[in-house]
Amino acid sequence: MGELNARYDKFVVDLLGVMAYGELSAFERLSSDARYSPTLADRAVLGRMAVTEFEHFDLVRARLREMGIDAELAMRPFQPSIDAFHDRTRPADWYESLMKAYVIDAISGDFYQAISEFLDPATRGVINQVQVTEESGELMETRLKRMLAEDPRLASRLALWGRRLVGEALTQAQRVGSEHSFLMGLMAENREAVAGRDVVNLMAELTKNHSRRMSRLGLTA
Amino acid sequence: MGELNARYDKFVVDLLGVMAYGELSAFERLSSDARYSPTLADRAVLGRMAVTEFEHFDLVRARLREMGIDAELAMRPFQPSIDAFHDRTRPADWYESLMKAYVIDAISGDFYQAISEFLDPATRGVINQVQVTEESGELMETRLKRMLAEDPRLASRLALWGRRLVGEALTQAQRVGSEHSFLMGLMAENREAVAGRDVVNLMAELTKNHSRRMSRLGLTA
Repeated sequence: MGELNARYDKFVVDLLGVMAYGELSAFERLSSDARYSPTLADRAVLGRMAVTEFEHFDLVRARLREMGIDAELAMRPFQPSIDAFHDRTRPADWYESLMKAYVIDAISGDFYQAISEFLDPATRGVINQVQVTEESGELMETRLKRMLAEDPRLASRLALWGRRLVGEALTQAQRVGSEHSFLMGLMAENREAVAGRDVVNLMAELTKNHSRRMSRLGLTA
Repeated sequence: MGELNARYDKFVVDLLGVMAYGELSAFERLSSDARYSPTLADRAVLGRMAVTEFEHFDLVRARLREMGIDAELAMRPFQPSIDAFHDRTRPADWYESLMKAYVIDAISGDFYQAISEFLDPATRGVINQVQVTEESGELMETRLKRMLAEDPRLASRLALWGRRLVGEALTQAQRVGSEHSFLMGLMAENREAVAGRDVVNLMAELTKNHSRRMSRLGLTA
């Protein structure tokens, strides 16, 4: 039993570590990308989104601190995969940057939501707090729709970009999963439930939701 | 009288415009630089400072909105000078980035403080709100002192860097001043007081305070 608990604790630390580093690096990338926005107002939009990522990072770090864990140690194992993801998905311009934020926030939100039901209340609380707010997602969707309406040639480029983003995200997620036997540490009593859904099903669900979002933008996923 | 008021209003819009763009671009530069921090904890330090700049940008923008002014229009005239300043002062590493934040926040704070006494209460209120908090300045000073103690070879490099930063900042400030006859628009009744101090004296005061800060770090200004 003690061993199971230790394994669960390790899992939660890993989960919060990957979240924290994901938020911190999203903050840096978004705010650097902001400089290339078409207008100053758009720069402020990406800037605001970046700040929200930092606030989420702060929340996750605070939770790690509560647990007596150094955030730096928790984040470090996930730095290579997340850096690799960003290096392989450098937005060519503001449009791709906004699209990246929209796609990745949504898919990681879905992922955290899917596993949060198997977690302890404190961890679940943090996950709920860092969920992309509905408004933020809608704001991005509205902005993306408007720019697709203004420049229809963007559609094929962004459709392709969306596919690449999800492909790279799932590749890195699988890498993290296999290196850290990530989902194996879930609470013992939930192990079976998780196994029932299994990782393949989860991936299928994530990509299905992604396709639905792309369709709403009028893009082929 | 109407003309004097119009000139004063124009001055305030310019002042808030330059502040807003200064904060927005400081936010983007700091958060991009953060990626090169020596440790993840240091990345979070620069990130937090960047977020504070964005919050200040938001405050100034809100004040412009209250005045019925489009922040984008107010900022645009100052974009070339501020971009030129940043292009000419690209930090080579995290140490130079922290030093830049410290030096520029302090000197622009001194500048806004020096002119705020000649401004209307609402504008003065915004300036007081965006003043770098004492703690933030002290935090940076402590971190700078620690890194200078750890690596004494940094001292000559950072001393040189500090001089360059101030030189470039004053050059761009004078450029802004002459292109926009910046200080001429102050409230009519204060024009004389300002002329009494005059711009040269103000510059002298700003550099004197800068030297004092450098000495506190053990650097030659």
